[in-house]
Amino acid sequence: MMSEFDLIARYFTRSARNPALTLGVGDDCALLQPRAGHELAISTDMLVEGRHFFHGADANALGHKSLAVNLSDLAAMGAEPLAFTLAIALPNIDENWLSAFSAGLLALADQHSIALIGGDTTKGPLTISITIFGDIPTGKALRRSHAQVGDDIWVSGTLGDARLALSAFQGKLPVEAHSLNQAALHLHRPTPRNALGIALRNIAHAAIDVSDGLLGDLHHVLKQSKVGATLQADDLPLGAILKSTQSTNVCHEFALNGGDDYELCFTAPPTKRDAVLHAATLSNTPVTRIGHINATPNIQIFNARGEALAIPLNSYDHFAST
Amino acid sequence: MMSEFDLIARYFTRSARNPALTLGVGDDCALLQPRAGHELAISTDMLVEGRHFFHGADANALGHKSLAVNLSDLAAMGAEPLAFTLAIALPNIDENWLSAFSAGLLALADQHSIALIGGDTTKGPLTISITIFGDIPTGKALRRSHAQVGDDIWVSGTLGDARLALSAFQGKLPVEAHSLNQAALHLHRPTPRNALGIALRNIAHAAIDVSDGLLGDLHHVLKQSKVGATLQADDLPLGAILKSTQSTNVCHEFALNGGDDYELCFTAPPTKRDAVLHAATLSNTPVTRIGHINATPNIQIFNARGEALAIPLNSYDHFAST
Repeated sequence: MMSEFDLIARYFTRSARNPALTLGVGDDCALLQPRAGHELAISTDMLVEGRHFFHGADANALGHKSLAVNLSDLAAMGAEPLAFTLAIALPNIDENWLSAFSAGLLALADQHSIALIGGDTTKGPLTISITIFGDIPTGKALRRSHAQVGDDIWVSGTLGDARLALSAFQGKLPVEAHSLNQAALHLHRPTPRNALGIALRNIAHAAIDVSDGLLGDLHHVLKQSKVGATLQADDLPLGAILKSTQSTNVCHEFALNGGDDYELCFTAPPTKRDAVLHAATLSNTPVTRIGHINATPNIQIFNARGEALAIPLNSYDHFAST
Repeated sequence: MMSEFDLIARYFTRSARNPALTLGVGDDCALLQPRAGHELAISTDMLVEGRHFFHGADANALGHKSLAVNLSDLAAMGAEPLAFTLAIALPNIDENWLSAFSAGLLALADQHSIALIGGDTTKGPLTISITIFGDIPTGKALRRSHAQVGDDIWVSGTLGDARLALSAFQGKLPVEAHSLNQAALHLHRPTPRNALGIALRNIAHAAIDVSDGLLGDLHHVLKQSKVGATLQADDLPLGAILKSTQSTNVCHEFALNGGDDYELCFTAPPTKRDAVLHAATLSNTPVTRIGHINATPNIQIFNARGEALAIPLNSYDHFAST
């Protein structure tokens, strides 16, 4: 049997390629030096088998998603990814699983030129905890608390296909196999929007990533900014599979409360519309204007005929029974 | 039932009191700014119920230990603690447990004037993952790879009482209740040696914290420094309960291979003996000289009569069956 130390060495040790890193895996701590005039953005997540992913989930996709959800948090701050640590509990040492997991994880790390700089491995129920580090010029972070009355509300990419795939896998909705495979890419291999987040520095007022559902995540922005929002349901950028297979009601519900989208929801003043679209072009990321910030402290949702829709906020809560 | 967000707010949100922190819990990322001329030291650990602590372990002590083991990693680099993140999976929301856990955790955080700056909570088998941040003047970190032939080997505090307590709790050794309570403090409430680690900057060549057992941890230093070591078994600073209740053989075994000590093992040239003792006095931490570094790539252990002892390296491996 491989020892813990062999395990770390074989699958997760990589030479640091980033000049910010002076010491990687193999000492008591990693050492990281943000650039002068920058501060460090830090986020941590924990993924638990049976809660965040199914037992037997594809290991390569799981490696990808574990890092993607953390990259998405950096994107929502406009921070540039630098490095990450990985703490993982494994029920046993399965070399095929480890090889696939680390390949998925490190392929996404390579796409973003970031290094795995430290970690911990132990025996236990399959649990993955990543802490990620990015840097950003001091004071330039996109905060949840900075939305202003009159701001447009934007969202990147499309919403709802991840939730559609989840519902199909749970047997709640029939979805034809080819379509399900396409929708499942959104669930299993989300694309974090880091280039867009960086391009929105000095343009957006506030940003958050859509992980628990648009309404719930937007609610955090509104609460912290002490403002409200109006959304146009028919302007929501629906996932292609969702749009082509489901009723309008299901489309609205999944786009607004679906979760697992890992798109950016952000606000910017109407004077910055061209700048937002330019940032979207630069980062090769579609964006859609879906509403605006107002002073009434709640979220109102209208259809194209101006009728108010009653869609309750139903954000994912990791302790609610589902 | 409390929601996840209420949970975070009630038990873990604290105002940042450290000038390095610009943003704590409540955004997509925390923001941290190391001092100019400093680099950031980062360490992460994962503790799993049934593996690192017993089911039903005292929650306050568990909160203390979860942070202490990470502080100990900073101590081994000579870094000054700044802040930490907490990712935790809980089987359910038990407010008594959470209250005790956070009290133990935050009391130790207060002792070190560090803030909880971010985290994640989810439902799952009880698992605690902390990532800790400290800073250190650039280039001054105590590395595992810098031990030099001729260095003295030192260790802080005492060794073996944590292992004695563990063996007693496992029913492998009888220990009288009052003594067990004292020994168990080393197991459940270790004292990280941060003040000593900082005082050893510019004095020690190499350092590591003793978490998996002195021999195993020293072995990491030797391997990375490409050197060997000679230890004097009778010079080992034995835990008071271990020393007063066990045979010499058990004392040596537990001090050398016990684990969970969270003392610092470090090397320094003989010309720095007075400086080491001064650092120990400044940091109010006892230190003991236990051997020296040589060029033979292994660990030789002698008793006071100069006889070689055959004590196999038996470091704790989280994947070995125990």
